[in-house]
Amino acid sequence: MAADSLSKLQLLQRHIRTFPDFPKKGILFRDICPILKDPATLTAVTDLFEEHVRKNYKEVDLIIGLDARGFLFGPLLAQRLGIGFVLVRKKGKLPGPTLSVAYDLEYGKAEAEIQEDAVAPGQKVLLIDDLLATGGTLYAACELMRKQQAEVLGCMVIIELKELNGIDRLKQHSVFSLVQY
Amino acid sequence: MAADSLSKLQLLQRHIRTFPDFPKKGILFRDICPILKDPATLTAVTDLFEEHVRKNYKEVDLIIGLDARGFLFGPLLAQRLGIGFVLVRKKGKLPGPTLSVAYDLEYGKAEAEIQEDAVAPGQKVLLIDDLLATGGTLYAACELMRKQQAEVLGCMVIIELKELNGIDRLKQHSVFSLVQY
Repeated sequence: MAADSLSKLQLLQRHIRTFPDFPKKGILFRDICPILKDPATLTAVTDLFEEHVRKNYKEVDLIIGLDARGFLFGPLLAQRLGIGFVLVRKKGKLPGPTLSVAYDLEYGKAEAEIQEDAVAPGQKVLLIDDLLATGGTLYAACELMRKQQAEVLGCMVIIELKELNGIDRLKQHSVFSLVQY
Repeated sequence: MAADSLSKLQLLQRHIRTFPDFPKKGILFRDICPILKDPATLTAVTDLFEEHVRKNYKEVDLIIGLDARGFLFGPLLAQRLGIGFVLVRKKGKLPGPTLSVAYDLEYGKAEAEIQEDAVAPGQKVLLIDDLLATGGTLYAACELMRKQQAEVLGCMVIIELKELNGIDRLKQHSVFSLVQY
């Protein structure tokens, strides 16, 4: 990795805070709020994602962002690439005809939803979220892409929590993370 | 308004869809998803917000974005301005010491929360969300700013639903909207 990318990663790492026992006992919560609060760090994170996409996924058509923290980073990346951004939301938030997929969360159950006309068959997409934990949300989003006959080029997150093995759940898809714990 | 801004507004207006009876009967839902899907329109929206801020609020320190659709537009604006972005979230999502304010939603009740160290006393902030309906969420966010002794320069939204009089609820604060219905 280039020296420049290394210093961007170090900047990023310094802007992730850890809170024990949130949202429940035994969970080490990784807080990405300081990244957003520091403009240079948010630029660095977008740079690192953009670099990865331009190197590996020149053919990408759309960035798909997950509710709600994927919304913080996805539009920035999509604008850098000059492509569109599509929302995957929690159930009941999107108007019009939708597709949905149920999944297990790290701390409960939920359903992911997308507008039926959001992605066209054959479109090449990259999924983005802040964090990969058990992989439930990203798995559901990949399933939504399968229902829409889109091609998932890969998933991208800022943080991967390796001990939760989310990557196993997403095994048919490549996962790119900037920081691993 | 400059011709350039007018054409950006027209582009924006063409990318808002209306769905009747969502999320419940009698509500005309304004869907901003097409804005995100079209990179030129998302650029135009960010341009319009940036232009407004540079003209009126040169002293702004932070952009405060509301969960979840304020997350789509706030970081883009903050990056343009070279300043930080702070999250106001639904209750229970933010780790560490927080402040919270309860409020009435257009379709229910909720509580808005912010990290206690997110904004320093005296900082000048602008609040951003996608839509002003009854103004409950923005009012709660302004109350959070008051608790943090921050100075609210104004609120910014893409869409204002005029018949719901949200602006009355926010009367002590200026509200800037790009499109009014």
